[in-house]
Order: sequence, then structure tokens, then C-alpha cells
Amino acid sequence: MNSSSISQIKIQKLTENIREEKDDIVAKEEPLEIQILQGNKINSVAVTMRTPGHDEDLAIGFLFTEGMLKTQTDVIRVRALGENIVLVVLRENLDIDLKKSERNFYTTSSCGVCGKSSIEAIKVESAYKNAECALKISKEFLRNLPENLRSQQELFSSTGGIHASALFDETGKIIVLKEDVGRHNALDKLIGFSLMNFSIPLTNFVLLLSGRASFELIQKAAVAGIKIVAAVGAPSSLAIESANEMGITLVGFLKKNSFNIYTNAHRII
Amino acid sequence: MNSSSISQIKIQKLTENIREEKDDIVAKEEPLEIQILQGNKINSVAVTMRTPGHDEDLAIGFLFTEGMLKTQTDVIRVRALGENIVLVVLRENLDIDLKKSERNFYTTSSCGVCGKSSIEAIKVESAYKNAECALKISKEFLRNLPENLRSQQELFSSTGGIHASALFDETGKIIVLKEDVGRHNALDKLIGFSLMNFSIPLTNFVLLLSGRASFELIQKAAVAGIKIVAAVGAPSSLAIESANEMGITLVGFLKKNSFNIYTNAHRII
Repeated sequence: MNSSSISQIKIQKLTENIREEKDDIVAKEEPLEIQILQGNKINSVAVTMRTPGHDEDLAIGFLFTEGMLKTQTDVIRVRALGENIVLVVLRENLDIDLKKSERNFYTTSSCGVCGKSSIEAIKVESAYKNAECALKISKEFLRNLPENLRSQQELFSSTGGIHASALFDETGKIIVLKEDVGRHNALDKLIGFSLMNFSIPLTNFVLLLSGRASFELIQKAAVAGIKIVAAVGAPSSLAIESANEMGITLVGFLKKNSFNIYTNAHRII
Repeated sequence: MNSSSISQIKIQKLTENIREEKDDIVAKEEPLEIQILQGNKINSVAVTMRTPGHDEDLAIGFLFTEGMLKTQTDVIRVRALGENIVLVVLRENLDIDLKKSERNFYTTSSCGVCGKSSIEAIKVESAYKNAECALKISKEFLRNLPENLRSQQELFSSTGGIHASALFDETGKIIVLKEDVGRHNALDKLIGFSLMNFSIPLTNFVLLLSGRASFELIQKAAVAGIKIVAAVGAPSSLAIESANEMGITLVGFLKKNSFNIYTNAHRII
């Protein structure tokens, strides 16, 4: 656990009729500004409210899931500039249309697809929409995921206030686990780490979300080529529609002894 | 319950070894574009991923908590233009600095303070930072709130995937209850409704949040002059800091037999 991800605080705890002062721990929430450098030009691309830690992964994952960079080789260097700014140095001849994205904006701890000015502009294209995926998983595989995640989710254990995204291989082993007060940030950290440390598309992996599944999370998963997404919470209508459209198997309300399959049930055997 | 707020879907439910097709209900998530009309000029101010229903309240609440309108009389008329666009007609001589806000942007179902391009620009000023608040509440009052909320939260009951914001008066009666897939939207709906139907500041009311307390929710509460905020979930570090700064009593992990007080404990007797 990164100690910069939590804050020590004093609280008053009331239990039945006892009021006591005690020390407690909460998840940090701070703004991170993501800047990109191309040639000699710096642009501020986004400000997101995030839990400090793995900021470089977050910046890379954000730029990737927003469609601004496509491969590892688009990234020359990533560097923290102080505590709350990350600078991503991009390939000079990488074609980024900042105007089109209209992303000189601000995203919160619970937001991920900010900055576009038209309803039409919501969707980010995924290069892996029609990617082949032969991965099949069993009921037992799925049912064990939440317990597996919980046992390794350090920030949640200590603060009770943080989302997780975890990537599992087909044996059920956690490959990447990232936590954040913002669920889209946790997923961007996971995808950014994956892009820089192994490879994308993540077609042979299963994504577990600790909370609910919204449209934006499904969209980010789609951009990374993920084909199986399981959420501990409920999906929204648009999450289901876009999972369907992107060929993603979407599972929700995942518990030890039951779960729901919303789309592409053929991958669960 | 607004039937446009939910979608009927078919799912496969797996319980132990039984796999069955069944009908289910999920919360709708759809983009809403908020437009403002001043004189003869229309501007698109934001697109937010929200649960349909109470869109006019959402649009008014959003514009108010973003500091773009200050009083009920700034609003001439609110009108839905089709399913996913709300037009707010504003007083012609109301001074709105669209450039300064830089809010031609897009917010998601879980996002509320999008669109600003600098870390400095996060905070929206509240006119009620130093407002007097003589309101005091008891432990018992607080402990009953979540049950009270749950009993009236229709969408959550049916979908399990929705946030609520509820405003209670000092007798513990629910005055306003709004639900949405995005917690900031639920709060904007509540504040928008309050602005148009009774009055702001909401200094004599208690706000209950069904989930966690983030910075943006505390900020919205502050702009509406709310001085007591209780959350069923955990607060973030920045939520605590801004509650402290804004003179707000912040309670978290609110349960029937225990809760934590993070700031301004003097209002709980």
C-alpha cells in the first residue's frame, strides 16, 4: 500500500451511547493534472480527482482509453512534475486532434468521459471491437473472483472507501490490481500499467470491477480489447447496450453463490 | 417511480448450479445535454450521463451548483427539447462567463465538476460559507435516516444500482428525495428542485447521501448552504478538508448503531 494514498485523521466515533475520539484512515482524493508534451509544446489535457499513487499509469491509461495514444511506442517518457502533475512525452509525429477531443477539462474522482460537447461525441472507437476471443470461463472461476480481489485490496480494507479494478488471467490469478476513489481512475491505472508493462489488447484476461458497471467503464474496457467484464454491483442500461455492441460478456451482481449474465453468455460454461 | 428511469431486460441468472432466463430491471443511463438560452443565443453547457426523470431539476441544480445561476429569478423557463436535451431560459442580463467556466464539456454518470482546465479552478464559491446555522441534531435522529431513506428509495429497491440524495427537515421527515445512476446528478436534482420549489440556502436541513462523500458532493452541498451532511459510505480526504473549510458537519459510515463524525461535531448532541 502506498502511504501517499491515505490520510491519517482524527474522528469522533459514536457507537450506541459511547462517543470517543479516535485515529482513523481515509482514502486521499486530490486533483491530478495530465499534461502532454509533443515537440516543444505542452498541453494540459485533463484534471482528474484521483487517489495519489500510480499516477503515471493513470495518465497513460487515460490518454489510451480516450483514444489519444494507440500503442506503447507512442509514449517516449512519463514523468511526475511535483505531486499533482504528470507530464507524458509523446512521439512528435503522433497525430492528436486536441480540438476534436475538446478535452481541456476537468474530471472528478468519479468521472471518466468528460470534455466532449455533443451527445454524438460520447463514443471512443475501439480497434478491438471485432477481435477474436476464444476465452471461456466457468461459473466457479467467476464466483471466486470477488473473494480473491477483497483479500488483496489493501486500500479498501483500511479505508472502506475505494474502488478497485483487477485483471485476472484464465487460471484465476490476479495480474494487475489498481485502486482509486474514482472507479474510472482505477481502470485507467490498470489499463495504463498493462499497456506499458505487457501488451494490449487484453483479450485473454477477465476484468473485475468492485462496484457498479457504467457506460464509461465498459467503453474503457472495450478500448483495451477486454472481452469479459464482471462487476460486483449493478450495470446500467447503457453499460449493457454497449457491452452487447462491443462483443463483451457482461456479468453483474457477482457473488459467491450467484450472478447475472447480461450479454454474450456463450463465454461462460 | 418514473417508468422512463428503468429498462426491462432479459438476463441469465446463475444460482448455485441452476441457470435460468429471467426478466430483470436495470437503471437507465442516458446522456442529457444541458443548454442555456439568453436573449437569442443558445449555448450547450454540459452533457451528463444521467438516469432520465427530473431532468429540469437536474439542469437547474447543475447550473446553480456550478455557480452559473444564483437565484430562482435567474430562471425564466425550463423546457425539455426531446428526450435528452433540456433548455434553460435565463434572465437576459444575467452575467455568465462561459469562457471562464470552460464548460463546453461532457460529464458522466458519476461526475460533477468537469470542464475546468486548471487545478486552481476546482472550487465554486459558496455565498453561504459563513451562514449562521443554529440547527442541532441528535444521535437518534441520525441513526434513523438510512432506514427512512431506504424505505422510500424506489429505484434502488428495483435495480440495486442507483444513488440517492435526500433532504430531511429537523423532525426527520424527508422533504426531497432524488435518485440517479450518478450521485452528483441525484444531488443536483435535489438542489434544483429545492431552488425552484421552496428556497435556498438549505441551512435548516440535513442532507443524506446513499454512498460515499467525495469533494464534489460536499462542494455542491456548500453552494446550496447545507450545513449537515451524512453519508452512508466513506468520505475522501478532500471531502473532509472542504467540509471543514465550509463549516459543514460531515458524518460518514452512518449505520443504525454507529457513525463517524469528521468535522464540526458541535451540531450533533
